[in-house]
Formats: sequence, structure tokens, C-alpha cells
Amino acid sequence: MERSELIEQIRKKKSFLCIGLDTDLDKIPKFLLDYDDPIFEFNKRIIDATKDLCVAYKPNIAFYEALGSKGWESLEKTVNYIPSSIFTIADAKRGDIGNTSLSYAKTFFDTYQFDSVTVAPYMGNDSITPFLQHEGKWAIVLGLTSNQGAFDFQFQKLENGHFLFEKVLEETQKWGSDKNMMYVVGATKAEHLKLVRNQIPNHFLLVPGVGAQGGSLEEVCKYGLTKDVGLLVNSSRGILYASSAEDFDQAARTEAAKLQQAMAKYC
Amino acid sequence: MERSELIEQIRKKKSFLCIGLDTDLDKIPKFLLDYDDPIFEFNKRIIDATKDLCVAYKPNIAFYEALGSKGWESLEKTVNYIPSSIFTIADAKRGDIGNTSLSYAKTFFDTYQFDSVTVAPYMGNDSITPFLQHEGKWAIVLGLTSNQGAFDFQFQKLENGHFLFEKVLEETQKWGSDKNMMYVVGATKAEHLKLVRNQIPNHFLLVPGVGAQGGSLEEVCKYGLTKDVGLLVNSSRGILYASSAEDFDQAARTEAAKLQQAMAKYC
Repeated sequence: MERSELIEQIRKKKSFLCIGLDTDLDKIPKFLLDYDDPIFEFNKRIIDATKDLCVAYKPNIAFYEALGSKGWESLEKTVNYIPSSIFTIADAKRGDIGNTSLSYAKTFFDTYQFDSVTVAPYMGNDSITPFLQHEGKWAIVLGLTSNQGAFDFQFQKLENGHFLFEKVLEETQKWGSDKNMMYVVGATKAEHLKLVRNQIPNHFLLVPGVGAQGGSLEEVCKYGLTKDVGLLVNSSRGILYASSAEDFDQAARTEAAKLQQAMAKYC
Repeated sequence: MERSELIEQIRKKKSFLCIGLDTDLDKIPKFLLDYDDPIFEFNKRIIDATKDLCVAYKPNIAFYEALGSKGWESLEKTVNYIPSSIFTIADAKRGDIGNTSLSYAKTFFDTYQFDSVTVAPYMGNDSITPFLQHEGKWAIVLGLTSNQGAFDFQFQKLENGHFLFEKVLEETQKWGSDKNMMYVVGATKAEHLKLVRNQIPNHFLLVPGVGAQGGSLEEVCKYGLTKDVGLLVNSSRGILYASSAEDFDQAARTEAAKLQQAMAKYC
């Protein structure tokens, strides 16, 4: 999907909500376990119930991988079921030497037809550029993550006084453009979004950590919003597991609608 | 596999060779494409021809993933086919927030029964510790990689004058021990092994980059060897694709034997 199409969808739906499909057999309503493919059945109902409220879906690949080849089948059915007007993110956090990253890019862009994949920066240029060579496809680079462990290395101070994550933003943005790269920036440290926007004023940010992880939408918008909105704010567990009853999909819709309504004034 | 078993195998076989199973449909001998599962057929023959010469196999997960659920089936058959006395490494370079890393650990340790998995450190403590909670299983952390992109971030100088990769070694080793953690350290910069050994004198190092990527076994041993050997030196393409003829497995054996013979004096 092109950047202009994504912005158009955000304006049209008055939403920059991304729904994380962290679909877990241990957490989905029990009655679904009688279906042949409970993971896909759950995702299908979540998608049916929320597709007018969000602009992106983000399957968390770990949850599919853990089920072996059957999990990958559920993933494939899920991606194929998502309407083409909705941006798809393979949350896979891949990254390896050039020829291996090329193979990961092939997996997510060709085999599974995702619009984008999250990538880890530690291995540098040749681990990321293979994800930037597919027309209309995106690499979403880990900038500043929302977990406690972010403080271990991302906040290491470099010789020039900047944090490592600032260096990562500064360097990696040279390898692509705001039309094929986005960044993961955690919402639990909204004040750091100011530092992020100093480095990358126009790139889209994928922001996890609003809701369950404690981030505030208002804070994120205060520091992160651009003239093109420039944000995809993700919620996973707060939407998916809002209820474990038969009408879980309607409970998910209610939670998604609350977020969409809070987002409308910024679109 | 426990550390003592691995050391025992190294002494017994006089080898610390790891063979990387970067099995690629475009590179394997053409006649194998007539088989129902060419990837497994190739791996099976490579394993049969080399299992007495190496102490570890390292499937590169990217190459299996790219084939979708069929690739994961080939991977599963391959792992099951490897004798239990040989250490298995899922070269997956995973790493995510805690509950997601837990799911990746489940994938490689429970679903696929690998002994170890390679992990990326950028997301810090909670992205790595879930891989350290399985008895007899290992996390192999990216320390210093063998690719050109290693210079982008791993060699960033911190305020204290140390490189980022040194900080990664210093911090991450606190989260486990030399009985459940190893480190990836590229052989193309053998002189840096001295810096690595300053930080982690006893941990096993998984060393890619000998052979195709230009590293020298002698240099690696000069700086990396410990009283327990402490090295797993990987070769992938140089062994797997030594020949594209029907007797590719014997050509692979010849290449593996050369490496094993060069290693014998260090064991």
C-alpha cells in the first residue's frame, strides 16, 4: 500500500487505529476450540466486527509460529481475509545478514502478501535494506520500544551525548524514505516522542503500548502527530480479549469504537 | 543439551564444526526437485554424510519460512532427523516483548525441540530472559555479527569509550550463565575476539563467517579458544553447495572433513 492510500484511509475512517492480532489459543473464547481452525475463526470475527473502525491489522507472528505449520495456515487465511484497503503489518521483528533478510522479505511480502514487516536494527544496513526493495511494501524499524528492556540498550548514551535509539533513527532513515519506512515507537514514554520527531518529522510511527501497557493517546498525539497524522496506534489485548463470551466480537467492537472516537478529532 | 554433553561431543569427534542448513530451493541439485519434499531430502543426505564430522546443525529459519507451512514441515522433519547427540540451533534471531518472546521460545523449544535459538538484543532484558527458562535449552545472543552492517550500530562508541557490542556482552551475561547462553561473534573481525573474551571468558561463541565470508579458523582459535574449546564454528554454503551433482553429499563431506581436520588439533 502506498503512503497516500494509507493517509486517505485514515481521513476517511477518522481513525489511525491498528488492531494487533495476538491471537492465543489459551485466551480466545472456549467455544471456538470446537472449530477446525479456532485461530482463524477468532480473527475472522474480530475483523468482521472492527474493519470499519481501524486502518491496520498487525498479526503478531510469534503466536502463529508457536503452533507450527497449522499456525502458518491460520496466518495465511487471516491475511487473505483482511480487506485490501486495510494496511497489514507482520509483527515479526526480523533482521539478519543480507541474503537471509532477503528471504524474510520474500516470506512476508511474497508468500504472505503483507504490506509491511517490523525489523530489528542491531545488524545494520544490509539487514534492513532487503525489506525496502519491494514496490508498495514497508519496513517498520524498531526505534524505541515500549517494554522495560528498552532501557538496557536503546537508552545507552553515545559519545556525542545522544541515545542509541536516536542514532538508529538518524542512520536508518538514510536507507529509505518516509514512503517505505516507518518506526516502532513506544507510547509508554510519550515525552520521548519529541526526541523522535526531531529526527524523523514525517515518518509514520507505529505506536504500541496505548491501553494495556499504560500509554496515553492524548500524549502520543501531542508529541507525535504530523500534518498527515503520521501515526498508527496499536491496541491488541484490550480489544481482542474484552470479553470471553460468545459475543466477544461485539465487545471488541465496543473497545475499538472508543479508541476510534478518541482519534476522530485528530484526523 | 547440557554444556558438559556438548564439550564431550567436541572432544570425542575432535570437531567444533557447526553446519548451517541454509537450504535454498534455487541452489540445491536439480534432481532433488522431483522428490515430494526436496528440502528435507537435501538435508537428510547432508546429515547422513556429515553427522560424524560436526557437533551442531543450524537451520537458517528464513529459508524454511519463505516456503510457508510446507517449509515448516520440512524444518520439523529435519530437526527430528538430527541425532540427539548433535546440538541444534534455530537461527531465527528473534526478540520481542516478554509475552511474545515467550511464545517464540515455545515455538523453538517445545514445538520444534531445538536445543537453542539465536536472539537479537535490541529490546533488552525481557526480550531475552524468556529463552533462558527451559532446562537444557540455550539462547544465543547476537554480540558482534559478521556482516558489513555490524559497523552501523554494534561499533557505536558509548560515553565510557566502549563499543555497544561490549555493553551488550556485559549486560546480557548477567541474565543467564555460560550454561544457557552463548554469543554470536563474527569471524571476519577475529582481532575483536580479544575484546569479546575480555567480557565473556567462558561462554561458548557461535562463529559464522569462516570460509565464504572470509574468516580464518586459525585467527578465531588464537583469540577465541578456551580450556573447554568454547567455540562452535559455522560453515553453511561452502559445505552445502560444494557440488550440484548427484554426489553433492560426498562433496559436502569432503569440505566438512577439511574443516574437522583443521579443528582436530584444538580439541
